[in-house]
Amino acid sequence: MARTTTDLLAATAELVAIPSVSKHEHLIADHVQAALRRQSWLETVRVGDNVVARTALGRPSRLVLAGHLDTVPPKDNEVPKIEGETLWGLGSADMKGGLAVMVDLAASVPEPRCDLTFVFYVAEEISRAYSGLLALSETRPDLLEATAAIVCEPTNGTVEAGCQGVLKVEIAMAGDRAHVARPWAGRNALHRLAPVLTAVADWPGRSVEIDGCRYRESLQAVALTAGVASNVLPDKAVMELNYRFAPDQDEIAAAARLRALFDPLLTDGDVFRVTDSAPSARPALDHPLLGALVKAADGSLSGKLGWTDVAFFAERGVPAANFGPGDPELAHTADEKVTRSSLERARVVLGRLVGE
Amino acid sequence: MARTTTDLLAATAELVAIPSVSKHEHLIADHVQAALRRQSWLETVRVGDNVVARTALGRPSRLVLAGHLDTVPPKDNEVPKIEGETLWGLGSADMKGGLAVMVDLAASVPEPRCDLTFVFYVAEEISRAYSGLLALSETRPDLLEATAAIVCEPTNGTVEAGCQGVLKVEIAMAGDRAHVARPWAGRNALHRLAPVLTAVADWPGRSVEIDGCRYRESLQAVALTAGVASNVLPDKAVMELNYRFAPDQDEIAAAARLRALFDPLLTDGDVFRVTDSAPSARPALDHPLLGALVKAADGSLSGKLGWTDVAFFAERGVPAANFGPGDPELAHTADEKVTRSSLERARVVLGRLVGE
Repeated sequence: MARTTTDLLAATAELVAIPSVSKHEHLIADHVQAALRRQSWLETVRVGDNVVARTALGRPSRLVLAGHLDTVPPKDNEVPKIEGETLWGLGSADMKGGLAVMVDLAASVPEPRCDLTFVFYVAEEISRAYSGLLALSETRPDLLEATAAIVCEPTNGTVEAGCQGVLKVEIAMAGDRAHVARPWAGRNALHRLAPVLTAVADWPGRSVEIDGCRYRESLQAVALTAGVASNVLPDKAVMELNYRFAPDQDEIAAAARLRALFDPLLTDGDVFRVTDSAPSARPALDHPLLGALVKAADGSLSGKLGWTDVAFFAERGVPAANFGPGDPELAHTADEKVTRSSLERARVVLGRLVGE
Repeated sequence: MARTTTDLLAATAELVAIPSVSKHEHLIADHVQAALRRQSWLETVRVGDNVVARTALGRPSRLVLAGHLDTVPPKDNEVPKIEGETLWGLGSADMKGGLAVMVDLAASVPEPRCDLTFVFYVAEEISRAYSGLLALSETRPDLLEATAAIVCEPTNGTVEAGCQGVLKVEIAMAGDRAHVARPWAGRNALHRLAPVLTAVADWPGRSVEIDGCRYRESLQAVALTAGVASNVLPDKAVMELNYRFAPDQDEIAAAARLRALFDPLLTDGDVFRVTDSAPSARPALDHPLLGALVKAADGSLSGKLGWTDVAFFAERGVPAANFGPGDPELAHTADEKVTRSSLERARVVLGRLVGE
């Protein structure tokens, strides 16, 4: 088995040193494109600041490896810092470590077992409308054609299968204004919201096992706004919920479940409204390439709790899984970091999969 | 008994037609001052846009009648409209009806039983710092010296004795941010607020009788703010409370009562903070002038639930009560109005009291 001799920690630090907050991916796209163009066996295409590199070996199957180029805004962590075998810095885990592994794999395996498409795309960390994957699927859908896909988001070197769906819901309770000294003349919308907020806080949770993967749902109140004046009963109280639902439910079933939870607490004039949603994706481990990925990862497997672009591929009929270096729990934190062993482990597993 | 022949409904309409939203009392002060200056038995003093007119008859007692010149902002009701015996319009109840009665009383009783001080002051409807009464008490405290005081806020022609105090409290719950897909990595401050909000909404209330007056307390959540991003557990949730407490409690006792209510729900890092307060005032009906007011009002008496400047006078050792025309429940509403009979009733009662 051929092994990379690249210093993956240094390569990741180089990527971290290139600022790439969402909508500012131009420089990092240049960097990645330059690295890929050197390889004669890759066809490299740039669409905006999205970069796609493909082999064209006529293999019966084609695997996409996808990673986003952007990061969230810095938290005083934009300068990469290596200490020993650990790299700290913005995007080190989410997901410049994954990008470094992808670039290295692309550059070092000229004859993979299946054809490979490396997709480096913009704007994963912001509103869906900006997503580079969406842009590619509209302008160059041929670039995304594949038998299976791996999204190289941080998973700590475990295969995280499928992904949970997202439902964003707004609940607006109605009331009637009145002076606080005479509350019986009105109806306090914020007080009416108390049992709704309690139902969220006390929600017992829901956990589902599919194909040996455990999905643990989450229902969180993420925002609340109410207030007219300090001496007036508020006539409106608006709560925003974020529901992460397991892939045994689609968006409609998930919305119906929430609606049933809150319906007894709502009356005429109150509003229950789905403001945004993203589909879940079932684990697709029966697909040979994804089954082989689990095997290459020594059987290390769990369900993906967050939403990722695995759902983007699944929606388009391309079975997909998450696999990459770095700790997903550190994504978007000031202490974001990645270790050399995590990078090398991911590189080795993917190398095994593509028949290095 | 001499009776006014003034058309009090028309006089009130004239006052309503002069815009006097807080901080814009100049024109209405001119109007009131002009009306008072005509009376030879009154000494009229203007301090800023506050207008004070006094008799100086050497009577053993002196009664202040006080009313604020300002209104809240309009709600499409700035044009006075008379239909039959009712006047609609901004400030008609709160409290230009009271001002019209005061001006008429001042202008028509040259030899009252006790000396009279009529105080027309600015900025009652906004932050306390702007109050014309506070300004007068700093620059010309002599103008406010009195044996007793009547604040002519709308009371529907009933003596509303004393007033409830006000406590504004902020409760800020702490949390730790985390991604919504991994809530166990953090602490949702908004979820932690649920039992606090429930304690407010379920507060059983408190009702106290003092000197035959019933005080019904009110505890209301008037504002709530929380939210970092739609996929992040909020690390802070801030609720604002408004507590109206009966005059058997002072501000310290009222704060201690709330603190005891919420203490079991708060931990290190949470904040319970009194942001503003105003004292309560006990009914002072044992004072001869206020006892006489109740008698003149045919014994019609209740406790004042809202906060008024009665507390301002009580704090300075001047026993005070609320008495005026108009329905207090209509104050600050778009449908604010006052009736001729309400104005005349108030005028008659006050005339009786001062020995017209």
